[in-house]
Amino acid sequence: MQLKDIKDPKDIKTLSIKELESLSQEIRHFLVDSISKTGGHLASNLGAVELSIALHYVFESPKDQFIFDVGHQSYTHKILTGRASQFETLRQHQGLSGYINYQESIHDVWESGHAGTAVSALHGVLKAKQLKQEAGTAIALVGDGSITSGMSFEALNLLGSDPSLKGIVILNDNNMSISKNVGALSKVLTLLRGNRFLMKLRNGIARITPNLLVRVYRRFKRMIKAFFQSGNVFEELGYVYIGPIDGNDLKTVIKTLKQAQKMKKSVVIHAVTEKGKGYEVAATDNDGKFHGVGSFDKSTGNPTKINHHGMTSFSEVISTAMIAYQHIQKTFVVMPAMLVGTKFEKFYQQFPDRLIDVGIAEEHAATMASALSRNGIQVFLPLYATFSQRAYDQIMNDIARSDTKVIFGIDRAGFVGDDGSTHQGLYDVSMFYSMPNVVITMPYDAKEAFDLLHYGFSQSHPFVIRYPRLETPFDSNHLPSFDPITLSWPILSEGIAQVWISYGPGLDLLQKAKSTLHIDARIINARFIRPMDLTTLKEALDLNVPVFVYEEAFGSGTLYHHILDYMAKEGYHQKIRNMSVKDIIHHGSRTHNQMDAKMDLTALMEALKDL
Amino acid sequence: MQLKDIKDPKDIKTLSIKELESLSQEIRHFLVDSISKTGGHLASNLGAVELSIALHYVFESPKDQFIFDVGHQSYTHKILTGRASQFETLRQHQGLSGYINYQESIHDVWESGHAGTAVSALHGVLKAKQLKQEAGTAIALVGDGSITSGMSFEALNLLGSDPSLKGIVILNDNNMSISKNVGALSKVLTLLRGNRFLMKLRNGIARITPNLLVRVYRRFKRMIKAFFQSGNVFEELGYVYIGPIDGNDLKTVIKTLKQAQKMKKSVVIHAVTEKGKGYEVAATDNDGKFHGVGSFDKSTGNPTKINHHGMTSFSEVISTAMIAYQHIQKTFVVMPAMLVGTKFEKFYQQFPDRLIDVGIAEEHAATMASALSRNGIQVFLPLYATFSQRAYDQIMNDIARSDTKVIFGIDRAGFVGDDGSTHQGLYDVSMFYSMPNVVITMPYDAKEAFDLLHYGFSQSHPFVIRYPRLETPFDSNHLPSFDPITLSWPILSEGIAQVWISYGPGLDLLQKAKSTLHIDARIINARFIRPMDLTTLKEALDLNVPVFVYEEAFGSGTLYHHILDYMAKEGYHQKIRNMSVKDIIHHGSRTHNQMDAKMDLTALMEALKDL
Repeated sequence: MQLKDIKDPKDIKTLSIKELESLSQEIRHFLVDSISKTGGHLASNLGAVELSIALHYVFESPKDQFIFDVGHQSYTHKILTGRASQFETLRQHQGLSGYINYQESIHDVWESGHAGTAVSALHGVLKAKQLKQEAGTAIALVGDGSITSGMSFEALNLLGSDPSLKGIVILNDNNMSISKNVGALSKVLTLLRGNRFLMKLRNGIARITPNLLVRVYRRFKRMIKAFFQSGNVFEELGYVYIGPIDGNDLKTVIKTLKQAQKMKKSVVIHAVTEKGKGYEVAATDNDGKFHGVGSFDKSTGNPTKINHHGMTSFSEVISTAMIAYQHIQKTFVVMPAMLVGTKFEKFYQQFPDRLIDVGIAEEHAATMASALSRNGIQVFLPLYATFSQRAYDQIMNDIARSDTKVIFGIDRAGFVGDDGSTHQGLYDVSMFYSMPNVVITMPYDAKEAFDLLHYGFSQSHPFVIRYPRLETPFDSNHLPSFDPITLSWPILSEGIAQVWISYGPGLDLLQKAKSTLHIDARIINARFIRPMDLTTLKEALDLNVPVFVYEEAFGSGTLYHHILDYMAKEGYHQKIRNMSVKDIIHHGSRTHNQMDAKMDLTALMEALKDL
Repeated sequence: MQLKDIKDPKDIKTLSIKELESLSQEIRHFLVDSISKTGGHLASNLGAVELSIALHYVFESPKDQFIFDVGHQSYTHKILTGRASQFETLRQHQGLSGYINYQESIHDVWESGHAGTAVSALHGVLKAKQLKQEAGTAIALVGDGSITSGMSFEALNLLGSDPSLKGIVILNDNNMSISKNVGALSKVLTLLRGNRFLMKLRNGIARITPNLLVRVYRRFKRMIKAFFQSGNVFEELGYVYIGPIDGNDLKTVIKTLKQAQKMKKSVVIHAVTEKGKGYEVAATDNDGKFHGVGSFDKSTGNPTKINHHGMTSFSEVISTAMIAYQHIQKTFVVMPAMLVGTKFEKFYQQFPDRLIDVGIAEEHAATMASALSRNGIQVFLPLYATFSQRAYDQIMNDIARSDTKVIFGIDRAGFVGDDGSTHQGLYDVSMFYSMPNVVITMPYDAKEAFDLLHYGFSQSHPFVIRYPRLETPFDSNHLPSFDPITLSWPILSEGIAQVWISYGPGLDLLQKAKSTLHIDARIINARFIRPMDLTTLKEALDLNVPVFVYEEAFGSGTLYHHILDYMAKEGYHQKIRNMSVKDIIHHGSRTHNQMDAKMDLTALMEALKDL
């Protein structure tokens, strides 16, 4: 069967197990081939091929609803629901989304947000079906990294306690969330996973013995298990626990799903899968580098993206700065799962005692960071801008309210590029501005990143240093020094005809616009987004010329609004215009994100000409 | 010992158990007496008397740090650390805080935010002590309602997995969080609590038999327990589980704490306490009405606050509207724990199938609400403004991003009055304004509340109806009808000399100011905070007179900023001033909150005169 010929999941229902097995091989080859060209989530999708096939084989989508936690592991589901031919457009502008997408298919029933939301959605779907007396069930597919997030627990706890609802949770356990797993529950999973011998034995026996014998054997096994092993956390929360099963063995998975389908009680199926299964380089990657990838060379696994000479990602700059900063002062890093993404592996290698990976637990991370700080520890808390949202209340109450010094490294701030609408870094400026006491900064280049980091650790308030998912000139052999700076806005380009203000990569656009439009504009680097440098602002406003503010951020309560407030209070009446994000920005490259927001260079120059 | 003579926890260390027991009685009487006059958290404090005494007796504060989850149960701790004489000022302006407060005592080491943060703080404190090689330990006191919040799980999961850290978690289980408990873990606790027979037996035996016999008995009991009962979730997460113990039996608690003190591994002590212990009315309250109270008559438990004739709280108005609205359309309520606080008990009694109480699990609530809505259910999600912060990411991604219709009832919006800085409802306007697609409204009176609710259910976006912790004229015998309204700003008072804009209770202040100052101001009710009524705004701005915007909200990204933006874009240059919250607002009455924010009537009139 050609993958591109699959128009509907019904098409695979008539296949034999053998045919399904060969389909899974085909899908695996297709995924490696396709993702090597477009980039995307690789390892998780390779691991979930059989689970997805089995789901569509056993259940009836969309009557039965499949809920993919986060949704980055849904590629096989996309193929089985008629979207194989669109994979060449994966994550590209107006192309196939890398996540579940309501617009793409009637089989995409739950556009997941961040990790750990699937069981809550499952609870909602089941309750809605009950209220409407509607047929069908729902199944949530959750990774082992996600299951330890607090929200998963809240949902498991609630769904498990309601005997009138029956749902299925597939715990897709590859012993690796985004990077490594942490916490006690992870140890429990390891223990359970240890029953692989039983798992293999059972599979073996199932193949050679008649049904009756299997049943007797199962009872016997249950007895033995009950004797040696205590109930596990899922059983305590009210679920039938089935597992561990080999999640890459199609026959086993199908059998188990059919078993779960017949049960009256909610079920947790613990499926052990092999991350990166079928693609050697990804399967043997222990760092999580094949979680999300750009385009790569299939034979080596190496990125094909040209390495820009002398350019380094801001993530790398910040983590390098943190390593260098250890000579000045010991600091401690609370890391919620993104060790690889934020490029802190080297830091961790060098200072294993100065970093704790708490997994996908941003709420815990923020409050723990506060307690560390209040007990005299210098704390750095790296968070993707989009994930900082997960700890809003903890940052507000435990850090901002009490004016506790925690240094936030807000990574991937601004347009995220090559990802999806749920991962845009556009809301952190509003968020931190809405919290008392928080200083918000954004470095323009590597040197400023070093200096702002140093500034942050030298002062006493909650301090945000946000940086984009971009590269910047950087020579790791000649690191910038940490120099004292003041709370000031440098003038990047002198001028008196107009005043243009931005921070971060927006400044590059303004400079390009200036050199094209030949407007004698003063370009100001508002590296302190909050508090503002009122001296520089006043000097600029005193020119009494039009003002333009460009912000790669959702436009509510950001710098522009606070400049407006200052102007209103101080009685400045010159023209002021701004550019910020007004709506949801979908997937696409960074440039396409800018275009979707009508904030690309062309749009900017139009606006500046109108000024 | 006179309670007011206790200056330091050391003062109780020399007392005998008998003396401590009589101290606990004294404290109980003192609490009932004192809280009956000032209001405050009653039931939880009565339950935690012995736990607090035992903590101070066994451990050495502040070397050993006590972390009170939320902190509303810390009154005995306050008494034992020399603050008994300040109780007459409890929760009053510049008086004793109702929570832990860094400024009050060196023994107040962790100002907790919202529920479920204590174990995270515990982890932070222990890690800091380890990094600094500092003496002492830390103990978290967490209620049974809090322990089921996702964040508690994240922290338990992480702390339990680190054998190099040893902390003590006291689960203060009175089988009642703020109101009733929900979820599977709660059932587990009930099961464990069922071992009370063993608990009593043990206590009894401990009193009459020599030590050796007790030890033998314990082993025997452990064996029996191991045979009949599986390990529990705490043991699975890596803790030594001790319990259940009688948390109101001082001798037992002291003995258990000493036992825990000696252990090398982190411990969960499951202490069963009696909420409201020693005060009959509170002890027999099954609804949680004695969780937080105003002043009351000690003999009856009835509130002493004068019932304002014909006045009803906005909470009651909204819940009554929701009951009435069921005649028009079936709706479903997802309730995160605040059934009593939001006055939804009657709704629940009448429509038990149309409300689910999910406990302190706001993240789960928001995502579940989204899934319900996407599956065709009309969903109402009541949240205190301050607790809405806990679901920021879920509201952002699962509701706002996907433009999913969920009707939020944001209770206690604005100054909270008679509570603490962690519970101010001042951030929700910024928060919801920073999220795409969300409509934000605030009714001025009961009729408008009915109409806005109806409007919300009739449209298709995420919809916020926020209301203050205040009373409003309302006749429950003659309910307002649900009338269609438009997205418009009513003019509350005509005028042409100035334009004053506000929403909610701010409008009352403006009207008072107008009648005192005799300024011919147009007072506009911006009941749609977002989107704005641009027709009415334009008409008002066209008067070309000074504009004033009053908002009981933290001032970033609120209505004022969006009016500024509109004026800048449309070229209005008249004077505009505003009043909003600029800093943390501490405890005190609503009036004192206003004064602290420099937003009371006097300050307002000064500002309006300057306009």
